[in-house]
Amino acid sequence: MAEEAGGIREIVSLTNPLVKQLRALHQRKERRESGLFLAEGARTIVEALDNGQAPEILVYHRDGRERAIIARLREACLAAGGTCIETNDTVLAKISRKDNPQSVVAAFRWVERGFDAIDPDSARVFVALDRVRDPGNLGTVIRTADAVGAGGVLLIGETCDPASVEAVRASMGSIFAVPVFAGSEADFLALCGRWPGAVIGTALPATTHYRKTDAPAPHLVVMGNEQAGITDTIAGACTHLVRIPMVGRADSLNLAVSTAVMLYGIAEPEEGGLG
Amino acid sequence: MAEEAGGIREIVSLTNPLVKQLRALHQRKERRESGLFLAEGARTIVEALDNGQAPEILVYHRDGRERAIIARLREACLAAGGTCIETNDTVLAKISRKDNPQSVVAAFRWVERGFDAIDPDSARVFVALDRVRDPGNLGTVIRTADAVGAGGVLLIGETCDPASVEAVRASMGSIFAVPVFAGSEADFLALCGRWPGAVIGTALPATTHYRKTDAPAPHLVVMGNEQAGITDTIAGACTHLVRIPMVGRADSLNLAVSTAVMLYGIAEPEEGGLG
Repeated sequence: MAEEAGGIREIVSLTNPLVKQLRALHQRKERRESGLFLAEGARTIVEALDNGQAPEILVYHRDGRERAIIARLREACLAAGGTCIETNDTVLAKISRKDNPQSVVAAFRWVERGFDAIDPDSARVFVALDRVRDPGNLGTVIRTADAVGAGGVLLIGETCDPASVEAVRASMGSIFAVPVFAGSEADFLALCGRWPGAVIGTALPATTHYRKTDAPAPHLVVMGNEQAGITDTIAGACTHLVRIPMVGRADSLNLAVSTAVMLYGIAEPEEGGLG
Repeated sequence: MAEEAGGIREIVSLTNPLVKQLRALHQRKERRESGLFLAEGARTIVEALDNGQAPEILVYHRDGRERAIIARLREACLAAGGTCIETNDTVLAKISRKDNPQSVVAAFRWVERGFDAIDPDSARVFVALDRVRDPGNLGTVIRTADAVGAGGVLLIGETCDPASVEAVRASMGSIFAVPVFAGSEADFLALCGRWPGAVIGTALPATTHYRKTDAPAPHLVVMGNEQAGITDTIAGACTHLVRIPMVGRADSLNLAVSTAVMLYGIAEPEEGGLG
């Protein structure tokens, strides 16, 4: 970016450096080095604006430059000193790696947050994922966290990248609404030590039903990874261990599903008009 | 298949007709014509055997032929008149379309079931999906249906294919434990007309909380598709319309997530040892 950033440019070449940089954002290494990540679709980008984040690079189909929604996104990008690229189907498809890409794609700056940045009193519930592997699961958990009004999603240890295209897609815009915090297992144990409410983990040997705890808020719900569940160390740091009842032959639920069942069971949001 | 079926064969050629047939099972047209579908991994195939279904074609890495689990699968396949193929990494990767394939893959016969085949008294809950589009969501719903002991998953109208590799993968073996029924919207309306319990749909204008219905069992839970929710016609056939409370900026939950919240809210399984 640097000196060449800002303004509106028409680019239809796949070898343009800016286009090449955007295409490279499918790689974690490139995201880490640039600090940027991709989000697709006007609706998701509006979600970002509504949450106070403007794109650094906005790419849209040149046929759509007169559309009101595109004008809004363009103005916000330019006002924040960003670069707008007017382009064609081919470039959009290459940036998105999809045959039928959205007509607008943008690069945003990723905000790194450690566990120290968490204010436990800012929400009734938070969700922590131990070494989550699947970006689709992670994005879906972020979406569910948004729907229950969670204060954040905590990533413990080595996890998949919340800024990956797959995770951002699955979050359906909630990546801009729900803060993501990351830290080591040691950082997490330290956080548990100073957590003012209950730290609730799911564990197979638990005999307490997930909805029948007397756990005090704020609730920090800890979910284990797709293969192994939570570690003994993390289980030891939980103030409550609970279980989701299951029958049938499947011996587990999908991680995004079990997280949602836990969040709705423990911290279901109150909504007006519901009897 | 036909006359050449049965027995154990070593095949390492990608152009072998049987290998080509297996690779083609990634296409819906080919699955429909052959009646076969792919399932991967020893654990999933054991799940099939435990549910009384043996593979018609079993493919495994030749280095693993002495393993006890492979021997069990091979015996079951041969006993049912199927064909076993001993092969290498390259062929397994091509059949699975994965760089790191499972060491065993199998083709099973798909069992077509219409709504007429449903026995409403066989379970406390069933789940119907209206025009579901995403095979990952569908497979995850099948897995959740298994965990709550549902009597089946009903597919209404044009849907993604429950026999696709993506759906089977996401079901984690539950595709063999939970019967899948398919039919048109008209078939579904006819089923609603004779359903002995409650037909429960989710709809935005509903004012009843999903867990606070007095709906009589067996519960037929109807979920709308990823984009549009349930149709007015289907909503009209529901005996109960309910809503899942949500806050935050996301205006919806992922379909597999909302289905799980509904199933756990309405028909949570009872399990011993849980207080």
